[in-house]
Amino acid sequence: MTDDRFVYRNFAWLAPEQSGYERSRVVVLPVPYDSTASGWVGSREGPAAIIEASGNMELYDIGIGCEPYLVGIHTLPEVAAHSGSPRAMAERIEEIVGELVDDGKLVVTLGGEHTVAVGAASAYAKRTPGPSTAAGAALRTGLSVLAFDANADMRDEYLDSAYNHACTLRRISEVAPIVQVGLRSAEREEHEYIREQGLRFYSPREFRRMGAEAIAEQLSDSVYITFDLDAFDSSVVSALGTPEPGGLHWDEVSDLLETVARRRRIVGFDVTELAPSLGPRANAQLAAKLVYRLIGLAVRE
Amino acid sequence: MTDDRFVYRNFAWLAPEQSGYERSRVVVLPVPYDSTASGWVGSREGPAAIIEASGNMELYDIGIGCEPYLVGIHTLPEVAAHSGSPRAMAERIEEIVGELVDDGKLVVTLGGEHTVAVGAASAYAKRTPGPSTAAGAALRTGLSVLAFDANADMRDEYLDSAYNHACTLRRISEVAPIVQVGLRSAEREEHEYIREQGLRFYSPREFRRMGAEAIAEQLSDSVYITFDLDAFDSSVVSALGTPEPGGLHWDEVSDLLETVARRRRIVGFDVTELAPSLGPRANAQLAAKLVYRLIGLAVRE
Amino acid sequence: MTDDRFVYRNFAWLAPEQSGYERSRVVVLPVPYDSTASGWVGSREGPAAIIEASGNMELYDIGIGCEPYLVGIHTLPEVAAHSGSPRAMAERIEEIVGELVDDGKLVVTLGGEHTVAVGAASAYAKRTPGPSTAAGAALRTGLSVLAFDANADMRDEYLDSAYNHACTLRRISEVAPIVQVGLRSAEREEHEYIREQGLRFYSPREFRRMGAEAIAEQLSDSVYITFDLDAFDSSVVSALGTPEPGGLHWDEVSDLLETVARRRRIVGFDVTELAPSLGPRANAQLAAKLVYRLIGLAVRE
Amino acid sequence: MTDDRFVYRNFAWLAPEQSGYERSRVVVLPVPYDSTASGWVGSREGPAAIIEASGNMELYDIGIGCEPYLVGIHTLPEVAAHSGSPRAMAERIEEIVGELVDDGKLVVTLGGEHTVAVGAASAYAKRTPGPSTAAGAALRTGLSVLAFDANADMRDEYLDSAYNHACTLRRISEVAPIVQVGLRSAEREEHEYIREQGLRFYSPREFRRMGAEAIAEQLSDSVYITFDLDAFDSSVVSALGTPEPGGLHWDEVSDLLETVARRRRIVGFDVTELAPSLGPRANAQLAAKLVYRLIGLAVRE
Amino acid sequence: MTDDRFVYRNFAWLAPEQSGYERSRVVVLPVPYDSTASGWVGSREGPAAIIEASGNMELYDIGIGCEPYLVGIHTLPEVAAHSGSPRAMAERIEEIVGELVDDGKLVVTLGGEHTVAVGAASAYAKRTPGPSTAAGAALRTGLSVLAFDANADMRDEYLDSAYNHACTLRRISEVAPIVQVGLRSAEREEHEYIREQGLRFYSPREFRRMGAEAIAEQLSDSVYITFDLDAFDSSVVSALGTPEPGGLHWDEVSDLLETVARRRRIVGFDVTELAPSLGPRANAQLAAKLVYRLIGLAVRE
Amino acid sequence: MTDDRFVYRNFAWLAPEQSGYERSRVVVLPVPYDSTASGWVGSREGPAAIIEASGNMELYDIGIGCEPYLVGIHTLPEVAAHSGSPRAMAERIEEIVGELVDDGKLVVTLGGEHTVAVGAASAYAKRTPGPSTAAGAALRTGLSVLAFDANADMRDEYLDSAYNHACTLRRISEVAPIVQVGLRSAEREEHEYIREQGLRFYSPREFRRMGAEAIAEQLSDSVYITFDLDAFDSSVVSALGTPEPGGLHWDEVSDLLETVARRRRIVGFDVTELAPSLGPRANAQLAAKLVYRLIGLAVRE
Repeated sequence: MTDDRFVYRNFAWLAPEQSGYERSRVVVLPVPYDSTASGWVGSREGPAAIIEASGNMELYDIGIGCEPYLVGIHTLPEVAAHSGSPRAMAERIEEIVGELVDDGKLVVTLGGEHTVAVGAASAYAKRTPGPSTAAGAALRTGLSVLAFDANADMRDEYLDSAYNHACTLRRISEVAPIVQVGLRSAEREEHEYIREQGLRFYSPREFRRMGAEAIAEQLSDSVYITFDLDAFDSSVVSALGTPEPGGLHWDEVSDLLETVARRRRIVGFDVTELAPSLGPRANAQLAAKLVYRLIGLAVRE
Repeated sequence: MTDDRFVYRNFAWLAPEQSGYERSRVVVLPVPYDSTASGWVGSREGPAAIIEASGNMELYDIGIGCEPYLVGIHTLPEVAAHSGSPRAMAERIEEIVGELVDDGKLVVTLGGEHTVAVGAASAYAKRTPGPSTAAGAALRTGLSVLAFDANADMRDEYLDSAYNHACTLRRISEVAPIVQVGLRSAEREEHEYIREQGLRFYSPREFRRMGAEAIAEQLSDSVYITFDLDAFDSSVVSALGTPEPGGLHWDEVSDLLETVARRRRIVGFDVTELAPSLGPRANAQLAAKLVYRLIGLAVRE
Repeated sequence: MTDDRFVYRNFAWLAPEQSGYERSRVVVLPVPYDSTASGWVGSREGPAAIIEASGNMELYDIGIGCEPYLVGIHTLPEVAAHSGSPRAMAERIEEIVGELVDDGKLVVTLGGEHTVAVGAASAYAKRTPGPSTAAGAALRTGLSVLAFDANADMRDEYLDSAYNHACTLRRISEVAPIVQVGLRSAEREEHEYIREQGLRFYSPREFRRMGAEAIAEQLSDSVYITFDLDAFDSSVVSALGTPEPGGLHWDEVSDLLETVARRRRIVGFDVTELAPSLGPRANAQLAAKLVYRLIGLAVRE
Repeated sequence: MTDDRFVYRNFAWLAPEQSGYERSRVVVLPVPYDSTASGWVGSREGPAAIIEASGNMELYDIGIGCEPYLVGIHTLPEVAAHSGSPRAMAERIEEIVGELVDDGKLVVTLGGEHTVAVGAASAYAKRTPGPSTAAGAALRTGLSVLAFDANADMRDEYLDSAYNHACTLRRISEVAPIVQVGLRSAEREEHEYIREQGLRFYSPREFRRMGAEAIAEQLSDSVYITFDLDAFDSSVVSALGTPEPGGLHWDEVSDLLETVARRRRIVGFDVTELAPSLGPRANAQLAAKLVYRLIGLAVRE
Repeated sequence: MTDDRFVYRNFAWLAPEQSGYERSRVVVLPVPYDSTASGWVGSREGPAAIIEASGNMELYDIGIGCEPYLVGIHTLPEVAAHSGSPRAMAERIEEIVGELVDDGKLVVTLGGEHTVAVGAASAYAKRTPGPSTAAGAALRTGLSVLAFDANADMRDEYLDSAYNHACTLRRISEVAPIVQVGLRSAEREEHEYIREQGLRFYSPREFRRMGAEAIAEQLSDSVYITFDLDAFDSSVVSALGTPEPGGLHWDEVSDLLETVARRRRIVGFDVTELAPSLGPRANAQLAAKLVYRLIGLAVRE
Repeated sequence: MTDDRFVYRNFAWLAPEQSGYERSRVVVLPVPYDSTASGWVGSREGPAAIIEASGNMELYDIGIGCEPYLVGIHTLPEVAAHSGSPRAMAERIEEIVGELVDDGKLVVTLGGEHTVAVGAASAYAKRTPGPSTAAGAALRTGLSVLAFDANADMRDEYLDSAYNHACTLRRISEVAPIVQVGLRSAEREEHEYIREQGLRFYSPREFRRMGAEAIAEQLSDSVYITFDLDAFDSSVVSALGTPEPGGLHWDEVSDLLETVARRRRIVGFDVTELAPSLGPRANAQLAAKLVYRLIGLAVRE
């Protein structure tokens, strides 16, 4: 039953003509998982909140002058949580994302906690042939990962698990080279490791000094973006388990994304860590708009 | 894509096999409308909250010993609001419910404010042949309506509209005879009208004196139930625009519904006025369980 | 400018004709004071919340079959807080209530914390001639006080002040004899004092055994009611600094008030301790309805 | 009864000497209306929240060095909602504002949703003689309107009504020429219409490039300001139905208003769309301060 | 530094003299763990909320006429979460509780989700010699478990884990015989299993028919109580992941506990599943009072 | 009992080795007092919220490159409120802080309302020998005070008390010279007093023009910092009784503190006015990080 007496609670609240699986270039995968959260909890409600808020957006993105929904955006049902172990959950996500990529879709993973990125990024890394950067060569992938994050997330293990959210970027760094923006929280060991290894992790101030172009140049052609919303200043997004002051603002993130999209190809991305009950609804609205813009930048000709 | 790695955000979070439109006996119609609210607002978020909470229920209803979902429960997309006039909105709902009834479905309307009941009850009244009670004769319908409500809702017009929520039962009474339970708020004129007309509106205390059987006996064979959640005591449900103390408790409502189901046939129903942000989430959980029980009572052989 | 294109944010949202000071028999005095709160704070917002919620009530009280607003209900501006000392605040309230009583008004004091009752009850006690009970004789007043409260409130001093909320009934007991209903929290010394002095403080269970008539009989002709909302069970009212389970329910409170009103004369009252941000808005609605019913019972011929 | 033992819940919590209707130059008109809201709802509670928060302000505005209350600020009771149709509500507001302007008052309309601006701006447009700009000539008014808004609000009809909030600036543009600041959300058709018609709608970035003086120059002598709070960045004000990132900040809004006030005459204004329950109370505080500053700028000699 | 200018945020806010580990008979063990939650999440904040609320209680429990704190109540730091697997977390809790029991303490475990009970009950079961009931004989323990719960919690595995909260009573039933009160939610398979095995699981209605004495008689001498707060009616406690209507009320729970304490010996207990952000603070207050009463009943001579 | 199966709810959630009183250089003193609050209330919950949030921080402060906890941070129990008079409360705080300073500790006072600073600053002023600035000479102290505040707080008396929060800086100015940053709210009399006396109170704009070095130069060698969080822009911290737009941002505060620490010696400080229930939890997180950074700056070699 499809008629204009109804509205549809998928991402962007699209009518069936614009959101059927077959005809859609983009697939949104909601993953309401937060079992390893160590701070405040609730990011399991992030995907539903983003989808709800996405109905408040205009379908025309005036900021980049296009209508991303025209390529079709299908919203999948939510991935079931695996309460047995975080590793098993990561494997489930990798499996699903892999199937979707193999089916020709651009996958948008909505967290949930940042760990959901491990499976998604891995699925992309394994499917991106030929190393195109020195960093990628060692890892045998042509993919590079642009990570937005306040935290280093480079612990090898935390609270007895290697798949805790505090280990997310460490795990991803094992499958593809990372450029991180937004860093302003780390333990001493992580910080030393980052410096010793010469990792490209940049604080907001360092990023401002470098500029967006310099970030884009460090990325290979195929870019996967993993976006922990705590990269934003806590005045911009506060509905988070570990909000941090001193972070990025909307306009500078938006400009960086535009630059990357102009210079490289965004092949997939995730937006994670929104815990809607910890802040105003405006945060879900911002996340929805970020997702929509990223879709626009990825699919724009 | 249907597999057990996913969960589905329809009513009762059912897999596609149990919730496809064709194979379903029951259809849930969410109507997120609250434009005439005169007290606190927010019942437009009721349907989404009930559907979200319905994932927390067991699919087996231990209270009545059956699994209502086995008959199939399809959840429709949300009805679009008509912001031009409340009357036009009522007509839209009547049209949709009518189509669904004509298609052989048992329709469960989720409000939104209580006014959404006007269209739904009207669609049923017009499709229920032959008056089976004296009261029904005058109205030329075989349907009778069991209304749960704290308020009389018998104003002829309120805030310049005949389709304001405060007029809901007045409008319904024009298409089918009503038995109301839960009354404890009315203006003097309404109360006098009820007494002069000998209407069967009962306060919780009157209901307790009469008992469930006496209520059931006043109903015709085909019963439509319209349930404004403020019939409950405000300690039981507080997430409402006009919560009232001195109301009904869960067990007595549950018993009355079982009695009615045993003695009559429930042909359709609505559950309305949940404004989730005004009270604890437990209220949405209760509403979901009430809806599921009503489905069970209506479809149980 | 008075016309029906407007609504008025006074108690019961009355038009000027029904709420002018001169023509009103009843005066509502909001006292947003909570400086001595020792638990959770916020009862300073109680008066505004009750007044806001009072616009959701019908002006006809169907429970007692009358329209209390017809005698006129004037709402005063809020009493300014005295942040220097709780004693000075009590004196300010006593002064104002005294002026209003001398002006022939029935005063309804809205807390704020329960301490606001000390000044109000004192003003009434000093203006009620001739002891009419043995208990009153010692105190030289014809007034008796019916206190609803979960706590003994009989400490002589608390947190270095004799006017702390935990001393409220001790202070009132120095000006008029008290009958208390709802007791279920006290320190050992208070409990022993109550038993040794043979004070008429009753737990909900004791009250249920005795019945409403037995309570009424212990009161003199002129009754002042001081109502700490924590007398209610915490499922009925939770928006409180010290909510307690095991308390009174709406119907039994309502019945007791009716009995007292039928047997004695309610000369004034207060309703206190609503801290609206600590529970659902339904609690403010209940408090408004309680206030309105008490007005009805006090002014009903 | 007027004495300093009391505080008064009108705008700025002024004593009667400073807030009587007769002696006041300024009149605050609260309009708690939000029936056409399509996103999150609750702006009906905006006026009460702004008035409550206004008691937290100093009466001296240190930012512009004056005490606006000295000209007298009277707060009217709230306008009753018309639940029949949005058009009828707009007419009611226009009627009331017109009467007040005719009585020599500067009217401050507090929404409620942005639609309340249609009636208010119309009342001013019809009472401002002689076109003083080319744009005004076509519309036969000397008034120009400075609109702060994130959205174009230029739809001709939305959700079946021409008076939906999404049509606000379209309706206003039919009675007076508009300069809009803050634009960052529009549907494609609106955006094309704006460009084709050469309308002066500016995004925050365009505004920053132009500067405040360039905005002021586009306005006629008599300026009506309509302020949808979503013009602010969603980190600044989040308690909104449709909060948007990438918006204006406090200091730049404040500077623009000062420039306009210095160069033109602010004859009336509205502040709308605050939905207090959707964000922190700080947002109501900011709105109150914005209103007070606008009063100061309008009445300052 | 110990003096009366300070208050102490341990359970019951006791001064060091009353809460040192050595001199205390009772030890409170907070376990902020909720990683397997399948509904709404947040019980990890339960222990801190209960401890905060416990400062609002009187130290004299007027309901049972004693001062439980006199035996000493020590509050331990919080148990660290194991994010690797739920089984490992259960083992950690069993180890800690075992050490405390071996040290002669009565252990009060505060959840967190109900799974925390598995480790605690197991530690007690293994340390309770000699089967004293037929049911216990098979399990080789003298302990019996009185479980308060709305849900059967008898799944053998859920969401891929045998230590999911939905399996709690199944796991406990493997170490000690259970009597459950409050049942009103189960899947069909669980319900059939309960009936086939003749398990003593009682709905609130069955419990009311039987009475407290009949429950007590089914327990062995040494009773461990595991209390999932959802046993309460959702009007009594709503701050829960899976609140259920139709449950127990305060007075009947309180009476049952008194009966059990009079007839048997309470050797340890847990109180779990409070998710404070999902309901009013009054729920934490009730939980604190429940814990304190249970301590009183367990240590009372 | 100290082992790594536990976490500890003191400031920074430190293990006993790092937080014992004897070995700690820093002592955190929580003062949950807010009895004189005139706006929105709730800062009494600030200390507990900051301590809770401090568990979310990394112990390495990447911004200043050190691990402040290594010097030991002991968290005291909370100071009991004195409900008799604000003056008595100030004296209690001064007494306790004095004892701690005499014991060689660096004291971090956590409010509570800003008045708690009066006692703390006084204790430091009296213990800082020899005036080292002209301003200090008159007051016979070597201490200078750097105050962050949105409000002048220079009233001599407010709401009948000289120890109201609106008088905080006036009282402190009587014991030590003040440099204030963040001013944007004052009554006219205060503003005139500041100008006439030539006090060094700077608005955010004035501060930006001057720069951090110019502020540092106005301070004597020994600096006490009193930090009312409303100095921050209300988008940065909104959980406040009197949030104000137009304030300071995180980076500029952070830079100013670093400059002061490099040029002077921070001998003690307080952070006050966080009212956690009035804004998102991110605000408590920011406050915890601010406290931790200030500790780092004060103890860094």
